[in-house]
Amino acid sequence: MEKENVSTALLEELIKNRQVEKIRQLFELVPTIDIAEVANEISDIRDLVFVFKTVKSDYTAEFFTDLSADVQEKLVHLFTDSELVNLLSASYTDDIVDFMEDMPANLVSKILKVVDKKTRTDINRLLNYKEDTAGSIMTTEYIELDSALSVKEAIEKIRVIGQDAETIYTIFVTDKKRNFLGTIDLDQFVFSKPDQNIEEIADKAAITVGVNTDQEDVASIFKRYNLNAIAVLNEDQRLTGIITIDDIVDVMEQEATEDMSKMALVTPLEDSYKDTGVIKMALKTTPWLVALMIMAVFSSMVLSSFQDVLSSLAILSVFIPVLMDTGGNSGGQTIALMIRGIAVGEFGPKDFLRILWKEFRVALLVGLMVSVFAFGLFIGEMYLGIVHYAPENITGTALFLERMKISGLVSITLFIAIVISKCLGVTIPMIVRALKKDPALISAPFITTIVDVSALLIYFFISTQIFQLV
Amino acid sequence: MEKENVSTALLEELIKNRQVEKIRQLFELVPTIDIAEVANEISDIRDLVFVFKTVKSDYTAEFFTDLSADVQEKLVHLFTDSELVNLLSASYTDDIVDFMEDMPANLVSKILKVVDKKTRTDINRLLNYKEDTAGSIMTTEYIELDSALSVKEAIEKIRVIGQDAETIYTIFVTDKKRNFLGTIDLDQFVFSKPDQNIEEIADKAAITVGVNTDQEDVASIFKRYNLNAIAVLNEDQRLTGIITIDDIVDVMEQEATEDMSKMALVTPLEDSYKDTGVIKMALKTTPWLVALMIMAVFSSMVLSSFQDVLSSLAILSVFIPVLMDTGGNSGGQTIALMIRGIAVGEFGPKDFLRILWKEFRVALLVGLMVSVFAFGLFIGEMYLGIVHYAPENITGTALFLERMKISGLVSITLFIAIVISKCLGVTIPMIVRALKKDPALISAPFITTIVDVSALLIYFFISTQIFQLV
Repeated sequence: MEKENVSTALLEELIKNRQVEKIRQLFELVPTIDIAEVANEISDIRDLVFVFKTVKSDYTAEFFTDLSADVQEKLVHLFTDSELVNLLSASYTDDIVDFMEDMPANLVSKILKVVDKKTRTDINRLLNYKEDTAGSIMTTEYIELDSALSVKEAIEKIRVIGQDAETIYTIFVTDKKRNFLGTIDLDQFVFSKPDQNIEEIADKAAITVGVNTDQEDVASIFKRYNLNAIAVLNEDQRLTGIITIDDIVDVMEQEATEDMSKMALVTPLEDSYKDTGVIKMALKTTPWLVALMIMAVFSSMVLSSFQDVLSSLAILSVFIPVLMDTGGNSGGQTIALMIRGIAVGEFGPKDFLRILWKEFRVALLVGLMVSVFAFGLFIGEMYLGIVHYAPENITGTALFLERMKISGLVSITLFIAIVISKCLGVTIPMIVRALKKDPALISAPFITTIVDVSALLIYFFISTQIFQLV
Repeated sequence: MEKENVSTALLEELIKNRQVEKIRQLFELVPTIDIAEVANEISDIRDLVFVFKTVKSDYTAEFFTDLSADVQEKLVHLFTDSELVNLLSASYTDDIVDFMEDMPANLVSKILKVVDKKTRTDINRLLNYKEDTAGSIMTTEYIELDSALSVKEAIEKIRVIGQDAETIYTIFVTDKKRNFLGTIDLDQFVFSKPDQNIEEIADKAAITVGVNTDQEDVASIFKRYNLNAIAVLNEDQRLTGIITIDDIVDVMEQEATEDMSKMALVTPLEDSYKDTGVIKMALKTTPWLVALMIMAVFSSMVLSSFQDVLSSLAILSVFIPVLMDTGGNSGGQTIALMIRGIAVGEFGPKDFLRILWKEFRVALLVGLMVSVFAFGLFIGEMYLGIVHYAPENITGTALFLERMKISGLVSITLFIAIVISKCLGVTIPMIVRALKKDPALISAPFITTIVDVSALLIYFFISTQIFQLV
């Protein structure tokens, strides 16, 4: 059976005709995620219960994890207690906790009622860790070996207890008091002598994290040290869980998605886009638009107080959008580079001055190129008639000079707006970060507002005071 | 020795005093990346050569990979041929290729001259794969076993050839003709009988990729199927390399950084922010600002043709920034959600209508909330004197109605701009993606321009035609 041929119709037919052998074969040949995807679309969820009765729990535990949240919920409702026990005992605790987090209270208690005491304690403990900490993503199924064992004894033990562990590629070594000593990679067993003591081959410099370490920091540590798994220690430095690389891959994806959302002024979604309703979606986006609108009051104030100028010289209004857009875009460029650099740990507030100096020089160069180009563009627009500016009684050289004045005014303002926006683009994310807040969410609105207001003030200052246009 | 105590000064001192034992101890106790970080700052690179003479090549190969590109380059210059051979024979081919890609031609040929023939062939082959394909990130050091072996024979073989492989956790099984048959996870050996044939325990449904598969697609496959390693097949379906999860972690980070850069209108940097010079940085950002400025010609055209209206009713200028900003921000929100959803494979062009319908309803809701709020805000601004609007000879109820008209005009325009921008925010990325182009880079400029122009046209249409304000 090929993955390409798996469809909801096929699955429904196999179930309806009670094709036990074919269903089992399906799970052996096709990855569970591919089956789950078509199973999510099944018309009667009750049919799926038959799959859980038929297929080995090794497969169904993974299959269940891959199903969508609402199908999982309906299934837990439908399962008898013994079916639930079968499923849960084959599942990893961190996976159980993952789907329990989205379930209503009655189903949570249904699950807690049927699991054994140790699992219940583990689940409750994991559910209690703050979201986005190492504790909340760790699992409690790992191989922990006493440092006194020999390599041969250790391999025997791994054979016995390894089936239930989330990874057997990293073994965690503790002393008699369960204090963490170090890790052993499985390949070291392959290359070691059977009678060697495992304490000798354990890597005692192994990196660890605490239960309250932020998951983004855990991800940075995995990347920096090329880890496959890491030990999570509690406040007493005892081994209390582990995190494996596949969970880190999810964390990285989630964190990148969140940062992108925040930069685009969307409060990060708890679920996927598909699973987020229309009303919720509107509530995740509207507050930011409203907040920015409130901050735009300052720009309106500036414009309002220069209404006379705008009335007598309407050409000034024509260039306001280009001024606002370019200032905002240029600041946005710098913010994005800063936020990403901070997120991946390339730099931080301590590098502030060095980066500000660099970005200041970048801004001078960008500002120069953009404003020289803009100067030519605006004069061109006026002569091509795209923008109409021909004051009465002025022609020839006098008109040319007049048009140069206007283009020069806009270009100089652009130059200053770019320099300001890029310097703020460094400064504000760094300050926000130094205050231990998230730079992605707060930076853009502030910078847009400050750049808009200062660009307008400069615009009117140059036009009235220096060029005396009005 | 603790990681915290490692400093450039310490390293320099150890080298100056030829403290061979202490240097070796340092590499046993501290991760190479932490040593590399302080080694990058060393004042005389020649001192580092001593480290490579002293420390086991297992460590130095990793250490070399962790050094910065310019330090690597200087070292390759300084190494004798035999030192270079030592280093390279302990390094993985994909790591060698990684640093060779940034080196000048004379150093590339220095390296190619000293490596053995097989490595030279591998390097040349890997260097020839197109950037960002599976071929360009794969490694050629993996464990490939003949399907005819027994479990016991396989373990013996792994012991012998495993030391040089990038991973021993996934074993790749091929038939006599080197056609790929399937994979075996190392833990299956631990749980299998010694005389079993390995063909029986191989996972024949194992997912593979081709040498030309895009690295972003490879990353999606790793995430979807929770893989640790994947086989890369050439055009003849022969096994030609493998990719491991640690390389995928780098790909994910790189792709997320690139998408964020593009959304913020920065051409993705080839190097890190730190390693990119001021001039290069300016060249990565300026073209986008200029491009958007050229596209803003259309907004200028619209404003220019309504200069009479703006002259006689300057209050209209006051609200132009709020209109532009809100339209741009609201479209930006939708684009970010689309681009990320497409990037992580949550949806694609085939889901276009469903998502457009959803986002249309979101837009109605967001537009309604924002414009109702805006209506109140603008009236408030006028009565608080933040925005000055009091036409001559109008007071009391007439003034109130007049102010309601202006606020209403801006609010209705805002509503329409939000709906247009969100619908375009779905449509444009989907079209760009359907054309097999990268939606992140092209979407924002188009949407900003279309939204700006249409918002301004609507603004002036309503004010002149419907409200007959001028």
